[in-house]
Amino acid sequence: MDNAYEYNDENKEKESMEMIFKNVDVPKWSKQITFRSIMTSVVLSVVFTFIVMKLNLTTGVIPSLNVAAGLLGFAILKFYTKMISKLGLLKQPFTRQENTVIQTCVVASSGIAFSSGTASYLLAMSDVIASRTDSGNSPINIKRLNLGWIIGFLFVVSFIGLFSIMPLRKMMILKYKLTYPSGTATAYLINSFHTPKGEKLAKKQVSSLFKSFGFSFLFGFFQWFFTAGGSCGFVNFPTFGIQAFAKKFYFDFSSTYVGVGMICPYMVNISLLVGAIVSWGIMWPWVASKEGNWYAKDLDSKSLHGLQGYKVFLAIAMILGDGLFQFVFMIIVTVQGLILEKRKGNTSSSIENYEDPNDSSDEKVSKYDDKKRNEYFLKDQIPNSYAIGGYIVLAILSIIVVPIIFNQRIKWYHIFVAYLIAPVMAFCNAYGCGLTDWSLASNYGKISILVFSAWVGLDNGGIIAGLAACGVMMNIVSTASDLMQDFKTGYLTLASPRSMFCSQLLGTGLGCVLSPLVFWFFNKAYGVGNPEGSYPAPYAVLYRGIAHLGVEGVSSLPKNCLKLAVACFAFAIVLNLITTLLRLFETKYRIHRFIPNAMCMAIPFYLGGYFAIDMCVGSLILYLWQRKNKKQADQFAPAVASGLICGDSLWGIPAAVLSLANVNPPICMMFLSAKDYSKVQPFLKGS
Amino acid sequence: MDNAYEYNDENKEKESMEMIFKNVDVPKWSKQITFRSIMTSVVLSVVFTFIVMKLNLTTGVIPSLNVAAGLLGFAILKFYTKMISKLGLLKQPFTRQENTVIQTCVVASSGIAFSSGTASYLLAMSDVIASRTDSGNSPINIKRLNLGWIIGFLFVVSFIGLFSIMPLRKMMILKYKLTYPSGTATAYLINSFHTPKGEKLAKKQVSSLFKSFGFSFLFGFFQWFFTAGGSCGFVNFPTFGIQAFAKKFYFDFSSTYVGVGMICPYMVNISLLVGAIVSWGIMWPWVASKEGNWYAKDLDSKSLHGLQGYKVFLAIAMILGDGLFQFVFMIIVTVQGLILEKRKGNTSSSIENYEDPNDSSDEKVSKYDDKKRNEYFLKDQIPNSYAIGGYIVLAILSIIVVPIIFNQRIKWYHIFVAYLIAPVMAFCNAYGCGLTDWSLASNYGKISILVFSAWVGLDNGGIIAGLAACGVMMNIVSTASDLMQDFKTGYLTLASPRSMFCSQLLGTGLGCVLSPLVFWFFNKAYGVGNPEGSYPAPYAVLYRGIAHLGVEGVSSLPKNCLKLAVACFAFAIVLNLITTLLRLFETKYRIHRFIPNAMCMAIPFYLGGYFAIDMCVGSLILYLWQRKNKKQADQFAPAVASGLICGDSLWGIPAAVLSLANVNPPICMMFLSAKDYSKVQPFLKGS
Repeated sequence: MDNAYEYNDENKEKESMEMIFKNVDVPKWSKQITFRSIMTSVVLSVVFTFIVMKLNLTTGVIPSLNVAAGLLGFAILKFYTKMISKLGLLKQPFTRQENTVIQTCVVASSGIAFSSGTASYLLAMSDVIASRTDSGNSPINIKRLNLGWIIGFLFVVSFIGLFSIMPLRKMMILKYKLTYPSGTATAYLINSFHTPKGEKLAKKQVSSLFKSFGFSFLFGFFQWFFTAGGSCGFVNFPTFGIQAFAKKFYFDFSSTYVGVGMICPYMVNISLLVGAIVSWGIMWPWVASKEGNWYAKDLDSKSLHGLQGYKVFLAIAMILGDGLFQFVFMIIVTVQGLILEKRKGNTSSSIENYEDPNDSSDEKVSKYDDKKRNEYFLKDQIPNSYAIGGYIVLAILSIIVVPIIFNQRIKWYHIFVAYLIAPVMAFCNAYGCGLTDWSLASNYGKISILVFSAWVGLDNGGIIAGLAACGVMMNIVSTASDLMQDFKTGYLTLASPRSMFCSQLLGTGLGCVLSPLVFWFFNKAYGVGNPEGSYPAPYAVLYRGIAHLGVEGVSSLPKNCLKLAVACFAFAIVLNLITTLLRLFETKYRIHRFIPNAMCMAIPFYLGGYFAIDMCVGSLILYLWQRKNKKQADQFAPAVASGLICGDSLWGIPAAVLSLANVNPPICMMFLSAKDYSKVQPFLKGS
Repeated sequence: MDNAYEYNDENKEKESMEMIFKNVDVPKWSKQITFRSIMTSVVLSVVFTFIVMKLNLTTGVIPSLNVAAGLLGFAILKFYTKMISKLGLLKQPFTRQENTVIQTCVVASSGIAFSSGTASYLLAMSDVIASRTDSGNSPINIKRLNLGWIIGFLFVVSFIGLFSIMPLRKMMILKYKLTYPSGTATAYLINSFHTPKGEKLAKKQVSSLFKSFGFSFLFGFFQWFFTAGGSCGFVNFPTFGIQAFAKKFYFDFSSTYVGVGMICPYMVNISLLVGAIVSWGIMWPWVASKEGNWYAKDLDSKSLHGLQGYKVFLAIAMILGDGLFQFVFMIIVTVQGLILEKRKGNTSSSIENYEDPNDSSDEKVSKYDDKKRNEYFLKDQIPNSYAIGGYIVLAILSIIVVPIIFNQRIKWYHIFVAYLIAPVMAFCNAYGCGLTDWSLASNYGKISILVFSAWVGLDNGGIIAGLAACGVMMNIVSTASDLMQDFKTGYLTLASPRSMFCSQLLGTGLGCVLSPLVFWFFNKAYGVGNPEGSYPAPYAVLYRGIAHLGVEGVSSLPKNCLKLAVACFAFAIVLNLITTLLRLFETKYRIHRFIPNAMCMAIPFYLGGYFAIDMCVGSLILYLWQRKNKKQADQFAPAVASGLICGDSLWGIPAAVLSLANVNPPICMMFLSAKDYSKVQPFLKGS
């Protein structure tokens, strides 16, 4: 009934994964969490927290860890169970559900390393960072970091994210059938590891997954050699010329996003491209032409007072417009369903009926998979009342504790308001991430800083209040998209939602303790936040800067920015209305299929079109493959795409280790205009 | 009976091209040369002579023109015949033989633009170039250029090349079945153009040819954008790191050589790679370590007094060793055959029996093609007595005329000796070119300069004598390889050798007149040879430099160079002996298949390994394809490889036109070491 749902029809795998596993038992949910899996999770969590923390404090670019967690979890437990089984002591075989549970726990704990804000909002409160900015350094706007209150703060804000996404889980995965490319790819990988021997097609699929995995890993490795500096390497390849590159139109040779493009529906990729063209091709050049009039000249390119402000606000406005529409529409449909159900006296919940009336009958195989997966996904229920209850209890706890931690610089009603709007934000982010694989959690956090800083004001500690609100929001929003990816993985590997939830609880708890500890280690050892040191934490300064912007109030936004944001918000709603009306009343040509998706259009507003181009390349590959051999493409494309995503993601781990060990790439592949080249050439010869 | 022959077995196309054409008449040889084809040839010859001359006077890099000549010849005549046929005036259909004849004529005439030496040895005689060197500028060592004697000189030396290759033709193409990758690719292209409608497999092959053609053309175009300077672009991609790049080990993204690698037998490509590793990996670093001892320090990198001398001499020595062995072996086998034949009273010539005893019986299809092609290739005989007679008559003419042109600075016996050894050189070059697609004509020319300059001596006009001898040698050697490529094309398109020969005569005559005229135009208009002008003709200075080296005598060669050259010569002969003995007496494991080819090993001595790596990539692609689907690979690989070669070659034409029009690429893709990058980065930011 939704467009994402509709898009996905085109892309359905035609072979049955679950047929292959039909003779393999799925253990009870409580058996999916074993002592050995908990131990493995803890070890991997520690390792990954170190990696994420280090990256967060230096470049701020963090690879997706789902794949690495799945792979390393498999490797460790496979080794362990083989050893044990040789000794004749193996009682319970190693299952893919157990594998998924480990993956979920590690993702949850290392996710906290990012969303704990030890490199962004929390650090921004400290005196070290405050001393690096010119104004707003009054004691009320500084909070000394201390292991005790950080752990306490994380405990009260991190778990609430888990409860907010519980009811959404069924919407996102069963009803909207969102793609969650990373989650899907991880599930393919885990399924491949555990494929029973002797299945011919499965064997071929596993082989093609590992081939593309190997290619993508080695290509990532190859690319590494050419990135001796920031402007070097394939990621800066001006494929369509230097002017297009300046507008972020280029193919950046990212295997990950080519793979994501192969998994995502065509319309998602086209929407992204359309969004990139409209924004970077038309809107930003137009806004830039008003420089000096709408906003001051010679601003830093990252300043929200300038062009960057338009990019962030317009994107978020459009995403919120789309998200709000989906949220309201979802509620209407659910309520309608409940009413119809009551009238009919139907016993099963409306959400559990996911039959698509347009499904053609020859998709029996796919139906089998869906049926089996739905069955397991719905087997171990966690009632919505628990989720909502949990949310409310935790919110109340948070409303009491957070103002105490921050000495009433942020008041109880601020937190209350934050928890009122957080579920919508979480929904938007999880929805967008399901469509495109991008989590924009930090942007929601930035918006929160602005709103709450402005509300509290400089003299009442608005900077600290804004940063604290950012923490509240970012934890919910980031958890929502990360863990929904995991639920998608769990859905595709028949892991029980209940075991997943327990694993997420465990991972979150681990993360709340580990992250501050690891941060403390870095801080004691190296002095985080020193601009001349190894860990300059550039984002902390940025976040404090946003809080400064906030306390100056809405009036400090560049001219017409608010008007344009409202227009984008309205545009998203109108676009959705048109699509929905067309879908309901124009069933002949099904024109609604050709209307781009507002959420997807908005993401490149801020990021630029490069990843949209990668994804369109993925679409093109899929299209050509389907045209050449439809059956083969349908059978192998998801495996190949998963391999591409997983290989590139896994390369992120050795790359991070190399960076930790200060091993730098030997070559710089550089792109210069002919004019710059003519300047550099004599300089190089002379030197 | 030969190794090249043997290698080719692996690579035989399994489908029959000639089956497709079996209902298409092949016109009589005299009908293959039509008025319209002569007109087209003349027009294209003029255009191509301009292009080659321009490139020759600037960068010296000349694209292979076989493909462009074939394609443009087709386009013009197809357009013309369509027009005429609409008017109802078409008497004779346009055939692939006619197409080949045009191609041959254009290649012959534009080949002269290179081998006429107007940018190398002839220009080097002039006062303009002499004034740019420090010594040897006495009047006896200068000859003023003049349209009259240049045309005369070219006429007496250019045609002789044609006669020298006539008897070799059957050896190379029928007996040794050499690949001649460019010639083969052109033939595929021409056959594709003329494929009769309705043939399903042929249609698919044509389609895959044009797909890879399009890819390779567009990829060439794409690469162009990134080559704003000499050290820019994909051709300078340090694929295996900067140190390997300095030793010429890198993949240079040349579609041409990947295609060539797909056509060439595996062993050729492996031999090239082995040669590259032995020379650039072991030998040259070893020689370089003797710098200051074996040869002077701080020499120009192009000086034959230094490392470059070893590279050129050792390569040529090894090629000569291999060539001489093949030449002698060929004579022995031929004489043996003639003796056997006489004893048996067999009427057919031994050369015409090309049955391979190892051929398996399921290669009937390939047999059909071979039979048909052999039939047409042998139909219109040109007796060897004519060829040898022609060679002797032209040689005598040359022996009389050339000393007159050069005022006896070169004596009749010098020319006589040159014509004695020329056929062996021509054989070597045509043989090597057949294996690897590389013509090393200019290197044979350089060796001639050295030998004859030394013989005559500085005071007797040794510089002019050496350069003149270079002209004599280069014309024969270059013609031999160029026109043997054409014969391969003719063989594969059933063009009559007699019509080919006439076309070559016509093309050579055209070239002898056109090249000096076009050169004269450039010289009058721009003043060729001025180092500050648009046409610096860098090679002319180089050639005069070699002549200087020559008059100083053999003693001026770097230390041990001659010893090492003799060792290489001997090594080539020993390697060939071992291979031949193994082939004759060790038939169980056929170990001889795994012994590399000396000729192939020698070529990268001088050029470096980059093209060997391209070709090995081609081999790898073919190998993987064959492993995946042997039948499909055998049917489509030659078409795909031809497309790759042709597309890239054709891009050479627009690239040359852009360069003529002074349109420069906008971007430089540069590769810097991390150290250089750290220097350039602040410089760029500052500028």
